[in-house]
Amino acid sequence: MLTTNPFDDDKLREECGIFGASGVDGAAALVALGLHALQHRGQEAAGITSFDGDHFHTHRAMGLVGETFSQQNEEAIRALPGSVACGHVRYATTGETALRNVQPLFAELSEGGFAIAHNGNISNALRLRQELVRTGSIFQSTSDTETIIHLTARSNYDQLLYKFIDALKRVEGAYSLVCVTREGMIACRDPLGIRPLVLGRRGDAVIVASETVALDVAGAEFIREIEPGELIVVKGTEIESHRPFPPRAPRPCIFEYVYFSRPDSRAVSAGRSVYAVRKAIGAQLAMEAPVEADIVIPVPDSGTPAAIGYAQESGIPFELGIIRSHYMGRTFIQPTDEIRHEGVRLKHNANRDIVAGKRIVLIDDSIVRGTTSHKIVQMMRDAGATEVHMRIASPPTKNPCFYGVDTPEKAKLLAANKSLEQMTDHIKADSLAFISMDGLYKALGEAARGEEPSHCDACFSGEYPTTLTDQRDRETADQLALLEETEAAE
Amino acid sequence: MLTTNPFDDDKLREECGIFGASGVDGAAALVALGLHALQHRGQEAAGITSFDGDHFHTHRAMGLVGETFSQQNEEAIRALPGSVACGHVRYATTGETALRNVQPLFAELSEGGFAIAHNGNISNALRLRQELVRTGSIFQSTSDTETIIHLTARSNYDQLLYKFIDALKRVEGAYSLVCVTREGMIACRDPLGIRPLVLGRRGDAVIVASETVALDVAGAEFIREIEPGELIVVKGTEIESHRPFPPRAPRPCIFEYVYFSRPDSRAVSAGRSVYAVRKAIGAQLAMEAPVEADIVIPVPDSGTPAAIGYAQESGIPFELGIIRSHYMGRTFIQPTDEIRHEGVRLKHNANRDIVAGKRIVLIDDSIVRGTTSHKIVQMMRDAGATEVHMRIASPPTKNPCFYGVDTPEKAKLLAANKSLEQMTDHIKADSLAFISMDGLYKALGEAARGEEPSHCDACFSGEYPTTLTDQRDRETADQLALLEETEAAE
Amino acid sequence: MLTTNPFDDDKLREECGIFGASGVDGAAALVALGLHALQHRGQEAAGITSFDGDHFHTHRAMGLVGETFSQQNEEAIRALPGSVACGHVRYATTGETALRNVQPLFAELSEGGFAIAHNGNISNALRLRQELVRTGSIFQSTSDTETIIHLTARSNYDQLLYKFIDALKRVEGAYSLVCVTREGMIACRDPLGIRPLVLGRRGDAVIVASETVALDVAGAEFIREIEPGELIVVKGTEIESHRPFPPRAPRPCIFEYVYFSRPDSRAVSAGRSVYAVRKAIGAQLAMEAPVEADIVIPVPDSGTPAAIGYAQESGIPFELGIIRSHYMGRTFIQPTDEIRHEGVRLKHNANRDIVAGKRIVLIDDSIVRGTTSHKIVQMMRDAGATEVHMRIASPPTKNPCFYGVDTPEKAKLLAANKSLEQMTDHIKADSLAFISMDGLYKALGEAARGEEPSHCDACFSGEYPTTLTDQRDRETADQLALLEETEAAE
Amino acid sequence: MLTTNPFDDDKLREECGIFGASGVDGAAALVALGLHALQHRGQEAAGITSFDGDHFHTHRAMGLVGETFSQQNEEAIRALPGSVACGHVRYATTGETALRNVQPLFAELSEGGFAIAHNGNISNALRLRQELVRTGSIFQSTSDTETIIHLTARSNYDQLLYKFIDALKRVEGAYSLVCVTREGMIACRDPLGIRPLVLGRRGDAVIVASETVALDVAGAEFIREIEPGELIVVKGTEIESHRPFPPRAPRPCIFEYVYFSRPDSRAVSAGRSVYAVRKAIGAQLAMEAPVEADIVIPVPDSGTPAAIGYAQESGIPFELGIIRSHYMGRTFIQPTDEIRHEGVRLKHNANRDIVAGKRIVLIDDSIVRGTTSHKIVQMMRDAGATEVHMRIASPPTKNPCFYGVDTPEKAKLLAANKSLEQMTDHIKADSLAFISMDGLYKALGEAARGEEPSHCDACFSGEYPTTLTDQRDRETADQLALLEETEAAE
Repeated sequence: MLTTNPFDDDKLREECGIFGASGVDGAAALVALGLHALQHRGQEAAGITSFDGDHFHTHRAMGLVGETFSQQNEEAIRALPGSVACGHVRYATTGETALRNVQPLFAELSEGGFAIAHNGNISNALRLRQELVRTGSIFQSTSDTETIIHLTARSNYDQLLYKFIDALKRVEGAYSLVCVTREGMIACRDPLGIRPLVLGRRGDAVIVASETVALDVAGAEFIREIEPGELIVVKGTEIESHRPFPPRAPRPCIFEYVYFSRPDSRAVSAGRSVYAVRKAIGAQLAMEAPVEADIVIPVPDSGTPAAIGYAQESGIPFELGIIRSHYMGRTFIQPTDEIRHEGVRLKHNANRDIVAGKRIVLIDDSIVRGTTSHKIVQMMRDAGATEVHMRIASPPTKNPCFYGVDTPEKAKLLAANKSLEQMTDHIKADSLAFISMDGLYKALGEAARGEEPSHCDACFSGEYPTTLTDQRDRETADQLALLEETEAAE
Repeated sequence: MLTTNPFDDDKLREECGIFGASGVDGAAALVALGLHALQHRGQEAAGITSFDGDHFHTHRAMGLVGETFSQQNEEAIRALPGSVACGHVRYATTGETALRNVQPLFAELSEGGFAIAHNGNISNALRLRQELVRTGSIFQSTSDTETIIHLTARSNYDQLLYKFIDALKRVEGAYSLVCVTREGMIACRDPLGIRPLVLGRRGDAVIVASETVALDVAGAEFIREIEPGELIVVKGTEIESHRPFPPRAPRPCIFEYVYFSRPDSRAVSAGRSVYAVRKAIGAQLAMEAPVEADIVIPVPDSGTPAAIGYAQESGIPFELGIIRSHYMGRTFIQPTDEIRHEGVRLKHNANRDIVAGKRIVLIDDSIVRGTTSHKIVQMMRDAGATEVHMRIASPPTKNPCFYGVDTPEKAKLLAANKSLEQMTDHIKADSLAFISMDGLYKALGEAARGEEPSHCDACFSGEYPTTLTDQRDRETADQLALLEETEAAE
Repeated sequence: MLTTNPFDDDKLREECGIFGASGVDGAAALVALGLHALQHRGQEAAGITSFDGDHFHTHRAMGLVGETFSQQNEEAIRALPGSVACGHVRYATTGETALRNVQPLFAELSEGGFAIAHNGNISNALRLRQELVRTGSIFQSTSDTETIIHLTARSNYDQLLYKFIDALKRVEGAYSLVCVTREGMIACRDPLGIRPLVLGRRGDAVIVASETVALDVAGAEFIREIEPGELIVVKGTEIESHRPFPPRAPRPCIFEYVYFSRPDSRAVSAGRSVYAVRKAIGAQLAMEAPVEADIVIPVPDSGTPAAIGYAQESGIPFELGIIRSHYMGRTFIQPTDEIRHEGVRLKHNANRDIVAGKRIVLIDDSIVRGTTSHKIVQMMRDAGATEVHMRIASPPTKNPCFYGVDTPEKAKLLAANKSLEQMTDHIKADSLAFISMDGLYKALGEAARGEEPSHCDACFSGEYPTTLTDQRDRETADQLALLEETEAAE
Repeated sequence: MLTTNPFDDDKLREECGIFGASGVDGAAALVALGLHALQHRGQEAAGITSFDGDHFHTHRAMGLVGETFSQQNEEAIRALPGSVACGHVRYATTGETALRNVQPLFAELSEGGFAIAHNGNISNALRLRQELVRTGSIFQSTSDTETIIHLTARSNYDQLLYKFIDALKRVEGAYSLVCVTREGMIACRDPLGIRPLVLGRRGDAVIVASETVALDVAGAEFIREIEPGELIVVKGTEIESHRPFPPRAPRPCIFEYVYFSRPDSRAVSAGRSVYAVRKAIGAQLAMEAPVEADIVIPVPDSGTPAAIGYAQESGIPFELGIIRSHYMGRTFIQPTDEIRHEGVRLKHNANRDIVAGKRIVLIDDSIVRGTTSHKIVQMMRDAGATEVHMRIASPPTKNPCFYGVDTPEKAKLLAANKSLEQMTDHIKADSLAFISMDGLYKALGEAARGEEPSHCDACFSGEYPTTLTDQRDRETADQLALLEETEAAE
């Protein structure tokens, strides 16, 4: 009920989920279970690579985990033998839906096969790629992840592990990685730990996953986080921990708690479930932005925990005033123009009986472009709501993410371009409020945000914790182009 | 969020949803929207037949509406021109998944094409079929619906409408039907009105649908029910009402309110939304079967409205203690035996942080075989619940349905074979209670059940409102077989 | 090398081939072999129905036998268990490519399943269909064959065999049939024996097939023809012969020898191979229409045996002056207009080295529309031929076939609309000659055609040996329409 | 009729055909036509890459050209815009049917896209690959062709053309190549010209193709061969010729004339058509190995021209005593064991009427394993032949080819392991004769073979014209393994 919202084009979208298992017969079946539990992190494609002691086996396909690795495709799992395997779910970025970008990526290196599954984004991938191609590397995909493979292949170290570490030292950005080699499984997390990665055990078997919910579904026990900057090498059921990078203060992504992670996952840094954090955000919001109303209504499913928190704190009854259909495919018929604008009801429909004649508080997790908010406020009014007060369980989203989240460019972010008053007007609500930045950190159990915040909140604050080489190159190129245009025009 | 539970093999399953549109260009696109809104009534197959004034066009396929009639298959809709169309969503019954059973069924009769979409079950279909085959009719499918077509084709009346009515007079059981002929659209409902059917208008266009939510999604206004025993003929935007059957007291299916209908549909006979009825059931249950506990947890999604009602009535906080994944395909990998039993978590996972150390009230809509209940109680205990009190939003399900609902045979219905105490023991709950029969009618706004109940509640009471010819024939055959066996043994 | 020309749109096309096997385990595998050998009689679709003593099994698909029943689809054969089976290959007629028209057709009659495979054409099918539909029969296909099934189902006789014979007595036209029922296999041939059907044995197993080549490939021995008007009932390995029709002088299709049958099939009525008949036609043609030339060139593959006969009789060397590609799919790319006219070379290409500077005799089996002949003559001239003399191994094709051959309407038959001189001019040959009608019968070993010819040669002579009810109805309707138009115009 | 034998597993198989077009709108459509004409050189997969001035477009698929680039897939061609394109047809080697091995291979180099289509075999590819992988290159396929791409990418030259030439200088073996780059088309042939490549013009457009028949079908005029060791660069319609290698005496493959090439292709070095060469071989064979017989029968299709030559020289009549089906798919049903051995008749069937009672000369192009010859001799005897004299249109095939032909290992070559007498016995013929080596060269118009033969005839003579590095490495490894075993055993 509360998994993140898969098909909403007005949401930020996590790009990937990863999962690995070592030391268990039929590891691929376990990976499939885990990926299913991480499906909310990417629905466009899924893949698994296993190693059976002799050969590597990979199956990757567009579509849901349950379609690709279902009973109908039972051979898909049988064709992935071995006691170690890693897997990946992903969104396809526009124009790049090609299967060759679906992970795990695989390459035959001089030390043998190397499979890699990546959650995050390498922010100097383009610059590295240009250099590699200039000196003779041939890329198979347009994925930033492939850069890591080529850097590994070209490293002068003489063992695969050191080549891989050598490669990681040259990349910047966000990465949680699970790899399978002839030696076993490698998992690691970038020095800031921007994207999550947790460690579990199922009996003796070693499991790594983007979220704890995947441990639950795979029948594994949560042990601890893979720590920011940590790299573990798993041989069978043995774990070896490395710290190849200079230590830095971690900055895990705060949006995982607001929206990306499943509510039944553990918010590790906050010491409780994501659901509890979201309820706390809702309660905090009720204190920061109270309103006199008859009922609290979530925009399902992502707004529901915050709405329960808001309702419990405010004493206003919680009601399901919007019913969501879960049968949405990615796209749907394009009926005649006349029929088209009804489209929004395909996913969300007002529960008129409950809404009619009421003053309502509407709780959503975030506002990105503002298009859905506008339609939902209107839907509530059409159903007879007398007042519609919108409350948002995150601060205004003003900046794009360069760490593996699919964000629209800044010009399309509502909060980057409008004042609160203008936004209220835009979505036609009676009132609109966002939780404060300090309020958000309070919900995580901290006193306030602090000078050196405990999380990456760049999408709200604009404070990016790493250099953004490719982005800087792009801006420089744009400025040069602008300069030339200006000069040409003179 | 609250649509019915599509893939649970421990639920009764509605077999079909139907939708028709007349008097609007591109009627098929509207039908596709409507069927999408009725997807919870059948996910295995979908079909649409349109008539363009000259030709009939049909597209039927296994899979979801949004897959069959999506943008990728935009031609599917373009290939269905015309201003009148009807459609159908269905479950496939075991062994009968063949496309030839997918509706609308279509036949070329002497008066021209005849398409029919059916929700319900003809309870003398087998006997009629035997007679028709003996005299030379050739069946294309194993569907009971085809019997109606052959009876129509073989009728001695000389107009299609009268032939069709002649056919209906020979069938018994439950049927809501939408047909398309060269003359227009016909919609009708059996004399007892067992299955639902509502009438709406979108501008001038005439819409019929299994539930009001389909009117909402198709942008149509709810006008009224098609009444039990009513048959309407729609030519363009004109509606003609017929009453071909002797009047009887209606008996609409009560389980529609408990489970089948979407919560945002209107419970027509009760004068409010299905959601409101379910909340009322929950509140009634709180009064009938109170318990001292810390939190109320729904089994999502179907238990959620009743849980909200229970929580509001009892004052115990409502919490999402179970998180449901909506990415389930129909089937999933069959991992090794060791991994298999984890399967239940693919769909439902405990929200441990909330559950641990709590006394919980667990609300579900019904218990059929009892297999899921057992697992979910266990899951709650594994997550640390100190007490688990199960409360069921319907009376015990003791009898199979012969009116279009896929029920297991009586021997597999938990409540048909065990006392309350035994059931409590079986699912390993600390306590178990079902709403009373009178309580259920109270939630519908009536004083009590009454001698001549206002609804069909045969699955609870065993009082079937029609003759069950095929079932009687089957029992006679079984008894004869038994007799012969006994005699042979002597 | 010499199988008939599958993809030439300028050829008459046999519509079907049939094959049945009884009294052998895995009968369906044998049927698949036989159908493969009959592939030249229909390449668009193939199907097999088997009966295993309890159930009927059918698999039908568009495409070649070797695709549908190949190793990749080994389950296709495994899914067709039983010791009796029948099969069919067919062309799809325009607009009717639908799978529901692919044979064997199957119906559940009151006596049990009934599968039927048909080669030929029922010439009063439309009139019978109208009557059947008017009285309540519902057709599943647009196939004339289905008429036979409905007549069988509606017959008042009380055994399936008599019902079937009763049905056959009502149909007119051409039919060779193989049926499978719960009782066994039935095979029969219309009273005139227009389409072929032969009987063979593979050990004890009984085989029936359209041509003897299918017996060869299935490892069976040729026994005899099923005789015109004969119906055999095969139970296991026992054969029972019936003669349900009044005796008539047979009229097997003469075009089988000219073009349809494989050259390695036995021309039963002529007492030798089809290849030998074609060679004799070529020799006769050399006597009737000699010409001074350097080489004899066949239009491959169908013209080859006659070309060898022509060369041997005339003493002019036989040479492969045209090379044919056998990789043609049904359709091919539509390149730009400039490129398109090269299309003919996709199938036939001149062997320039041989042709250049030569006077050539070009041998083809028939001229239908004349489009290919024109192109091939031009191709020969482009390759440097100094003279091109066309010789045709059949008399002018002036009339459509109503007995199961796909012929263009009369207005499109070149010989129906042009004199020999005009035809010569049209195809731009230096000379053109057809074998004489008597010459054709001579090649079959008869003295001349005779008053009551031994074969159906309606496509040449216009003498149809049966009533053509549907065709007469069509002409009457056209005349009435014309009359009305004329009257309206006055 | 006479195209090479596609599906015979008892034939040597050419591995590829290539085609390129430059300077014509819609170049890809022309390439599709050309590949269709080269289909006999490889039926398993086909691919085309085009360049439209901005982007490269590639479509590759398993299956026939006419399936992949047919009308049904018209978009396949439309999706390949541009005025320059190259294409490839290929056999898939066992275990390597993967799409990633289908050509053209494509890579993004630092100078932009680079597509390459290759006919031949690089005989030091493995050694080069090991070195490249060791220094960081990542291979996408198992194809030897990819080695050329990586060598190009890693070359220190600074222009793509020079990098490519630099790469070619490091490879040994046989290669005819067509490449497309941002600059235009490059075509070249190894220094010995082992595999063929011809140059044509269609108007101004420049065409290169494996055989002249592809020029015919694409409507182009034959200009000349690309000469051994020549590399041409084509920009639009301009041709620039380079000679990057030291000159050597050419050694084109002689088996092209015996079997691989289509009979309507020009045998460039012999100055006439392949058909004429094959007829001359047949005539020479009649002189070298005459026999008293009644008829000459080809094993169709590849034996047919030699049979015509044999018949004309000997005066014994040519007859089609074996009929071949062209509907064979790659594989076919595996019927029961009893049925299986009939399999050979699926492709070849005796024309009994012609064969019975005759002394026959059977002409085939070559004997590889001897399995088919054995079956066909038996088939002739079963059909009543009184004597069967086998005549083979090539010398005994005693050695594997390492230049792009799929040969069985030496141990499986009949002629490598048996004397003529043993072979005659093995195939159970009354007599057996092969053309002499000198006779073969005579048929090409030379006096005899000569010390430095004009063609590569290694499959007959064992004289390989190049170093075979990988083969030598393999043998060394085998010897070392043997040595170790021997030592271990002591």
